[in-house]
Amino acid sequence: MSDVARVGLLGYGTVGSAFAEQLAERAFQVEAISGRRPELAGVLRRSEGDFERILADSDVVVELIGGTDPARGYVLRALEDGKHVITANKQLVAQHGDELFAAARAAGVQLRFEAAVAGVVPVIRVIQESLAATRIEKVFGIVNGTTNFILSEMASTGASYADALARAQELGYAEADPTEDVGGADAAAKMAILARLAFDTAVELDDVGYEGITEIQPEDIAYAKELGLSLKLLGVAERLGEGISVRVFPCFINADHPLAPIEGPFNAVMVEAPTITEITMSGPGAGGPQTATAVLGDLVSILSGEAPVDQPSARMEVISEVSASFYLHLEVADEPGVLARIAEILGRNGISVQSVVQRGLGDDARLVMVLHEAPESAFYAALDEIAALDFLRAAPRAIRVIEEAFA
Amino acid sequence: MSDVARVGLLGYGTVGSAFAEQLAERAFQVEAISGRRPELAGVLRRSEGDFERILADSDVVVELIGGTDPARGYVLRALEDGKHVITANKQLVAQHGDELFAAARAAGVQLRFEAAVAGVVPVIRVIQESLAATRIEKVFGIVNGTTNFILSEMASTGASYADALARAQELGYAEADPTEDVGGADAAAKMAILARLAFDTAVELDDVGYEGITEIQPEDIAYAKELGLSLKLLGVAERLGEGISVRVFPCFINADHPLAPIEGPFNAVMVEAPTITEITMSGPGAGGPQTATAVLGDLVSILSGEAPVDQPSARMEVISEVSASFYLHLEVADEPGVLARIAEILGRNGISVQSVVQRGLGDDARLVMVLHEAPESAFYAALDEIAALDFLRAAPRAIRVIEEAFA
Repeated sequence: MSDVARVGLLGYGTVGSAFAEQLAERAFQVEAISGRRPELAGVLRRSEGDFERILADSDVVVELIGGTDPARGYVLRALEDGKHVITANKQLVAQHGDELFAAARAAGVQLRFEAAVAGVVPVIRVIQESLAATRIEKVFGIVNGTTNFILSEMASTGASYADALARAQELGYAEADPTEDVGGADAAAKMAILARLAFDTAVELDDVGYEGITEIQPEDIAYAKELGLSLKLLGVAERLGEGISVRVFPCFINADHPLAPIEGPFNAVMVEAPTITEITMSGPGAGGPQTATAVLGDLVSILSGEAPVDQPSARMEVISEVSASFYLHLEVADEPGVLARIAEILGRNGISVQSVVQRGLGDDARLVMVLHEAPESAFYAALDEIAALDFLRAAPRAIRVIEEAFA
Repeated sequence: MSDVARVGLLGYGTVGSAFAEQLAERAFQVEAISGRRPELAGVLRRSEGDFERILADSDVVVELIGGTDPARGYVLRALEDGKHVITANKQLVAQHGDELFAAARAAGVQLRFEAAVAGVVPVIRVIQESLAATRIEKVFGIVNGTTNFILSEMASTGASYADALARAQELGYAEADPTEDVGGADAAAKMAILARLAFDTAVELDDVGYEGITEIQPEDIAYAKELGLSLKLLGVAERLGEGISVRVFPCFINADHPLAPIEGPFNAVMVEAPTITEITMSGPGAGGPQTATAVLGDLVSILSGEAPVDQPSARMEVISEVSASFYLHLEVADEPGVLARIAEILGRNGISVQSVVQRGLGDDARLVMVLHEAPESAFYAALDEIAALDFLRAAPRAIRVIEEAFA
């Protein structure tokens, strides 16, 4: 290869244009480190550019289009053509990781994707390199900035979900169609990637159970604040026996939890292993320059000749039966025997109650319960029974809790 | 090289023995990643083992002896002999970095030292690799676990410095002779290393100004708690114009500062750059298994054939004139004109007062002032004048403040 490294750029939106700018500004530094001066070989825009010609002119292809089509075809073609690829595309890696990693291995080239999870926060590199030989037990955190902004906004202003979402859209933290973010699918794709790397196992997107934040009510957050708790959308990937569990759900955490101070559009990821205790990494989860910086870091590693870390693809069992503690919010008719009836249902399903607060609301009452950890299936069986009770005035609301939050 | 990677281990204390254990347990995983199975070629203990024989038998040398002598000689000899070296030795890298990096470059081998700063927290790799091409403006944080434990203990229990230190020694967080930790020299060495990497410049240990925590009084911490502040021993390395400044000092920070929740023996490092906003990384700063895990991560990178990132050694000017905000604690005779006299001295030196609290103490009074940011030389000139005033009842105490903490 020559002393020039030719970079083919696919996509020229917020991240693509920021990357082109940083590449020009920092080319001298990339050359000082790697011995090769990066130059843009071509840019594929929506309405301009020819992919095959850019590919032929490139040593490294940077995919910043997003979505799986046509990105998947371009990336596969580039890998098969013996080109290193950098992508920031979480859906692509989460849905087609097996195929892409296999293509990279077959061609002996690198596929890097730091920017696909938590933006510039270096979680991919730390898991793939610093902790490559470490038996990781758990990776969890806040991997979606849109929802974290909305929850922060609801907590600090008392706004409704709809108003906080509107504010996020106004500030550019949420898209016009926010479904993928607020429903949890975006975080699920990122957790699938983190689980794959942390546990050296193929993880399908379908393996990841997820819930979003669209049902969160201001009063849930107000209640949490009263108790010094924060509500976060957590992604959790953990070993359970010989299997793993990967999930995304809103959860109450203690004020002194390392994730509690993560506010606004920031992301944070914690890694736990017996030999490391825990590492926490946080920073901006999105943004043009920030995401472009992660891409630039990947480019330096490729040009410095660092070898790809080849992940074995053993397939671990995905455990669907997990345990959790829940906060349960019920609006009920204020009549005798209501609490006894609910307690009976919980008890029969093996769920013990940690605390209950009941408050009158005219003819109705509000019952807020925190339950001890139990299998989620048992909790949901109880919840189905409770939801069918005729004295219920509204659908019950359940939110997970890290139990020590209420200890 | 064969399919076995022979590892020569120098030092078999807490970290050395933990590393030997992890190496045995995780050898299969290192082999899966790198294609080479690591095996201990020999161990140099205080009373046992022959360095030259271990060196001859090794592909990689791991130095976990600590101190600069004989560690420096061993590491240089190993590099010159064409062996990759991993060290956890902050004093060695801080004091002899130029010489060691030159030896590694000359021999075309790697010198890795993730464990030398913040234990398993991957600050070295992130600065050297993820952010290699990024123009970093500032690196700062808590890089000494002993002092952070002592300050946390003083804050949570109201203990005196001496009692908190005794507690730290009891728990193994402080050594029998704690001077290097509590005086700030340990943090200074780590900041010299971080500054070198972040700014691509040679940094001598003498360039780093440092203060420790031995003079901190419980009432300073009580005052801070009252205002919702935490007191931390901060290391700060930053660009100032065309130069840099690297310092270690105790400092008040706001409760919502990302470093405020870092308690006990944990470390945390923040990196700032225009293109990344900020990244924060935290975790255990010491401990046998934790530090050994950082060494193991370095070993995987070496065996995976990743190239060393060669840092240019341009030498930036070290700026000694920096600005800061101060908290100033004075015990004075309770007589007319005292405040006016002090305010006059401050004003004449160009230092404006943000807030004053005066409280009577029998015949004496306690004056606590928070001052606006000013050149440190101006502040210290004023402090010298104030210290000489005849109505002062005790030596003045000054602690830096991140100004927004009092805004």
